[in-house]
Amino acid sequence: MKAIAAFPNQREIKLIDVPEPRLETPAQVKLRMLEVGVCGTDKEICRFDYGTPPAGSEFLVLGHESVGEVAEAGNDAGGLKPGDLVIPTVRRPCPHGHCLACRQGRQDFCYTGDFTERGIKERHGYMTEFVVDESKYMVPVPKELREIAVLVEPLTIAEKALIQVWNVQQRLPWTCEFVPGKGQGHCHKAVVLGAGPVGLLGAMALSANGFETYVYSRSAGESRAPLVESFGAHYVPAETHSVEDLARVVGNIDLVYEAVGASQLAFDMLRTLGPNAVFVFTGVPGRKGPVSVDTDLLMRNLVLKNQILFGTVNAGREAFEAAIKDLTTFQKRWPAAVNSLITGYFPMDGYADLLKGRAGGIKNVLQIG
Amino acid sequence: MKAIAAFPNQREIKLIDVPEPRLETPAQVKLRMLEVGVCGTDKEICRFDYGTPPAGSEFLVLGHESVGEVAEAGNDAGGLKPGDLVIPTVRRPCPHGHCLACRQGRQDFCYTGDFTERGIKERHGYMTEFVVDESKYMVPVPKELREIAVLVEPLTIAEKALIQVWNVQQRLPWTCEFVPGKGQGHCHKAVVLGAGPVGLLGAMALSANGFETYVYSRSAGESRAPLVESFGAHYVPAETHSVEDLARVVGNIDLVYEAVGASQLAFDMLRTLGPNAVFVFTGVPGRKGPVSVDTDLLMRNLVLKNQILFGTVNAGREAFEAAIKDLTTFQKRWPAAVNSLITGYFPMDGYADLLKGRAGGIKNVLQIG
Repeated sequence: MKAIAAFPNQREIKLIDVPEPRLETPAQVKLRMLEVGVCGTDKEICRFDYGTPPAGSEFLVLGHESVGEVAEAGNDAGGLKPGDLVIPTVRRPCPHGHCLACRQGRQDFCYTGDFTERGIKERHGYMTEFVVDESKYMVPVPKELREIAVLVEPLTIAEKALIQVWNVQQRLPWTCEFVPGKGQGHCHKAVVLGAGPVGLLGAMALSANGFETYVYSRSAGESRAPLVESFGAHYVPAETHSVEDLARVVGNIDLVYEAVGASQLAFDMLRTLGPNAVFVFTGVPGRKGPVSVDTDLLMRNLVLKNQILFGTVNAGREAFEAAIKDLTTFQKRWPAAVNSLITGYFPMDGYADLLKGRAGGIKNVLQIG
Repeated sequence: MKAIAAFPNQREIKLIDVPEPRLETPAQVKLRMLEVGVCGTDKEICRFDYGTPPAGSEFLVLGHESVGEVAEAGNDAGGLKPGDLVIPTVRRPCPHGHCLACRQGRQDFCYTGDFTERGIKERHGYMTEFVVDESKYMVPVPKELREIAVLVEPLTIAEKALIQVWNVQQRLPWTCEFVPGKGQGHCHKAVVLGAGPVGLLGAMALSANGFETYVYSRSAGESRAPLVESFGAHYVPAETHSVEDLARVVGNIDLVYEAVGASQLAFDMLRTLGPNAVFVFTGVPGRKGPVSVDTDLLMRNLVLKNQILFGTVNAGREAFEAAIKDLTTFQKRWPAAVNSLITGYFPMDGYADLLKGRAGGIKNVLQIG
């Protein structure tokens, strides 16, 4: 069967033939892969800046944002059956029995760093025709979401962040009836930095969860203002507004959701936060030189305003389930907006355009078979 | 009666005579003040860098770390009676009915910034013979703690931080049976930056709560290593150890408790944090110029290691109660260590040495009457 793989030593991306996998235990399922989305991490792997093949392999099959259909299920596959639509999670536990997180199935918080990730770190990904894996790593998704289900994995970034926001803000009286998964009227004010797929999905999730949401971004050619406004959020163009202007437009900011991976912008933005605010970092910046930061001011604000910052990466099952729930909400409330996030479909032999060219648009997707 | 007050316009600290206050409602108590501790904030106020007198007053009576004895209680004073030992809290709610935090008695997380603070912001403090206040702001303290009860307020900084640490780490499997107020064997590793009163009390609280605790400090003349080791923590001298050396000594750091107010050290330390770590800022740095920070590295670490940072200031009733509980533990387990934190007593007419001189030692205390 076909697979799209990175060969780091040869510095090549190739469409290759690999043996079709077979069920090996009753707890496994075999998936027919349907679609795989492409994100910044995939592009980094294709520039050979990131990514590690499995031990003993000279290549890494790409892809971690996926949706598949169960083709075959073992006898002990948690009730999954052929035809079921599933999203496979990405991270697998570290081999150490002492990692409290992995032992509890919470490898999204692995302590050792020795986790593996399909399509990223020491395990093959989903850009192939069939995949065999443990049924416990599969998250069922309703058939009604088939067209947009490839957005589940990128949406889990926001969902894991929101679950944590909800947890950490239990430290204080938090200012509105924020019930995860339910929109409860506007009262918290959130700023999303960036209008790429992670930013836009984050903004939709915040909007659906009752936040008055502002997206702050450079327009990069075409304005995303109409799209952002179509799901009830506000667009503030970075070309004409400094972060201080943004703070004046928004008023007291309760939450910042960073989705650009630009540390200078993030640290500038920190200066504008109000009392009890939360700042969530999701972007992984490239390495530039040190920048000049007024750390005294940041620290005074952190302390005197009881502020909190955290970074978040990868998502566990709970976040996948929340993403599926929220995606169902998006489809009901803003069908045109959520559909418009997928801007291109590519066949397997179009992999070069998808992965290495500048496909443009928001989320581009490999269609398999 | 006598009071010690700052006169910001005259830039003077004076021992003055003020009218003795009287009970005005049945919910109030009148306290005979016994002891008032001095901290960095008091010294800032005495340098006229901080502090605001009440509206219409040209002076601010100093002092917020205190212990008093009920001299007189109204009929509706929550069961308080003459002779009871109490610690008065410091912050009072903002006047806005819409502040969700203050409305719930959680002015330690006031949203508006219009709270007042006794001895600091728009309310007179405790360096006086008698004080009248609402009984609901009084936290009873057992007579057995009389000698060290003046340490309750400075200990609340660590207690509020620990309560928050416990709350925020509910976001993930946290690596030991950490039960607030109970020592449960060592498994988390904590680093305390600074060996002043806030740092030492924080280190004792961490040690009592089951953390393997390391205090990192400059020795400033005399080493605090023997004191630190006497309550089961480890001392790492900053003169001979860089933050990288410190991280090698400790191994994986789960928690950093910052108690020096030096932002450069704090940001250097951030670089050394491991997966899922928490960094707590308690110090308010003075204003120097911007410093050079590798924000890309910090942000990569925050995201890829799921790290969290927060600042904390002021404490609510819950933290005062936890401090009283922990102080009882300290007194049982490490009586010599906890007693040695109080290094000097000063009478009211010795205020100049206490507040403006360089009294030295750890915690210096005004004795009233």
